Amino acid sequence: MPLSEFSLIERFFARRARRGPQRAVLGIGDDCALIAPAAGEVLAVSTDMLVEGRHFLPNADPLALGHKTLAVNLSDLAAMGAKPRAFTLALALESPREAWLEAFAEGLFALADRYDCELIGGDTTRGPLNLCVTVFGDVPAQAALRRDGARDGDDVWVSGTLGDARAGLGLMRAEWDASLFDERERASLHEALDRPEPRIALGLALRGLAHAALDVSDGLAGDLLHILERSRMRADVDVDAVPRSQALRKLPLDVQRQCALAGGDDYELIFTAPPHARDAILDAGARAQVAVTRIGTITALRHATDEPAITWRDASHAQLSLTLHGFDHFDAN
Amino acid sequence: MPLSEFSLIERFFARRARRGPQRAVLGIGDDCALIAPAAGEVLAVSTDMLVEGRHFLPNADPLALGHKTLAVNLSDLAAMGAKPRAFTLALALESPREAWLEAFAEGLFALADRYDCELIGGDTTRGPLNLCVTVFGDVPAQAALRRDGARDGDDVWVSGTLGDARAGLGLMRAEWDASLFDERERASLHEALDRPEPRIALGLALRGLAHAALDVSDGLAGDLLHILERSRMRADVDVDAVPRSQALRKLPLDVQRQCALAGGDDYELIFTAPPHARDAILDAGARAQVAVTRIGTITALRHATDEPAITWRDASHAQLSLTLHGFDHFDAN
Repeated sequence: MPLSEFSLIERFFARRARRGPQRAVLGIGDDCALIAPAAGEVLAVSTDMLVEGRHFLPNADPLALGHKTLAVNLSDLAAMGAKPRAFTLALALESPREAWLEAFAEGLFALADRYDCELIGGDTTRGPLNLCVTVFGDVPAQAALRRDGARDGDDVWVSGTLGDARAGLGLMRAEWDASLFDERERASLHEALDRPEPRIALGLALRGLAHAALDVSDGLAGDLLHILERSRMRADVDVDAVPRSQALRKLPLDVQRQCALAGGDDYELIFTAPPHARDAILDAGARAQVAVTRIGTITALRHATDEPAITWRDASHAQLSLTLHGFDHFDAN
Repeated sequence: MPLSEFSLIERFFARRARRGPQRAVLGIGDDCALIAPAAGEVLAVSTDMLVEGRHFLPNADPLALGHKTLAVNLSDLAAMGAKPRAFTLALALESPREAWLEAFAEGLFALADRYDCELIGGDTTRGPLNLCVTVFGDVPAQAALRRDGARDGDDVWVSGTLGDARAGLGLMRAEWDASLFDERERASLHEALDRPEPRIALGLALRGLAHAALDVSDGLAGDLLHILERSRMRADVDVDAVPRSQALRKLPLDVQRQCALAGGDDYELIFTAPPHARDAILDAGARAQVAVTRIGTITALRHATDEPAITWRDASHAQLSLTLHGFDHFDAN
């Protein structure tokens, strides 16, 4: 296919990009975009690459894919307490079909516009479908929600409910019987997988409150461990306190736990904060219109040989021995 | 392959990334990196995606590929007059082989270290080989070399020589007889294709001198037109003045012209500047240790129906009618 087709794509995205307010010093159309953080703040930067067959199925709905491509990147800004500002999009396509591109851009820009996030540059080329976004947000350097700030005695919190995206994937794969769920529940599980909502408002509300935060992309077990490793801490987590949706509760308890503790693609926030901040955290959740739930406690490493780890307990505080399988995205390896 | 292998890759790149001086507020290992431009300046941002089979051959030398992946991005900073600062790398790999990764990282970081450009984040996933870099540089907003600043009467300049990368590709494809060249010439053509040198020093030296600039990735004809379109200008170019290497001159004249005018992957700078700046431009080239050559003149659109375009002339100023074929990267479509 001639390059001119790719120029058309670029113009298509560029035109959409200019609908919103221009927030960059210089946007699409030059060798580089020019951007500066808000006065006194720094830029938070994150890159995610989505690959067909791994992060989404070959026949994925392009509207949902456009949403999710940006959503997983905005989720990284949320986890940092950053305010969305701009993004670049590089995409490789085997054969550009106009209807597909139209729907993809629709999903992408609907989300971008909601968060006032401007497309400032990118690249289009021919190749196996690949979507790479780099996203930029504003945050005061000292207020950024890092992974290394968890302290002894902090509460561990999560937003929303966990495991729904993994349950939605299982539903799509017929790992469980669809008749377990009513129509609304099935829709909510698919929605969790296809259209995750980045917790931007919550991330902003947690500035100055949370000591550490990240977003759940690979599953609670693995992602909380990232906080513990960077902070050199341990955690006790009450498995029964991990918030699960009504739909997820239709599955057997062991499957619920696998989904909620080791399922990925949730894009909820895990964060830690001191007990005296509990009311403020609940208030932040209310303002951000998302439930926030305490699920455990951070504890210091007591001995020289202690390593960062999670101790799973049930509601009676008895220690559980769980074998968790990491989220395997869309392939069976 | 288990995710843990990809974690290993990430740790491998992260370890290399910390060898140099840390220039970001927060580098690899959190949800986002944190970065701020130099005081009073803005960040120049550019993204390029390299795909196997399109931008490089499946059996490409990983050392050269590591160099080129970053070089084509740094070239965009050069074209903006920006000073390299940091980059992110997202890569998809079918099967991570340690020797390949080692060589790729070697080529990548050798160039990054030369320009004091820090790896601040990225993503690794399984998929068809795809390399996506987003690069960041510092530039005072008013000194940025944009595409839209060319003025009536400006000289058109290029750095280095043009067409060598295309000639190197032709050599690799046996489009021409290798025995036309001596060994040193063959090496220089391959080098031009595999290891382009971003013109960072020249870009910095041109701040305040050049009115407009970009880098040659798709060929002089197409890329100069980008300046003309953004600046709403025309250009007269003396085809015989376009600098060609001794190696390129071994090819028939019409092939030389195709390579020099429409060959891509050169990553030299095209820029425009007023005639009174000629001595300063030559001085800038000398300081940056790269030849700079005047090849033409910018002229205003004279009539309402005039469109931005290039008029090709020979040394006697006679107008030439050239049919140029755009650079087709590595496939035959």
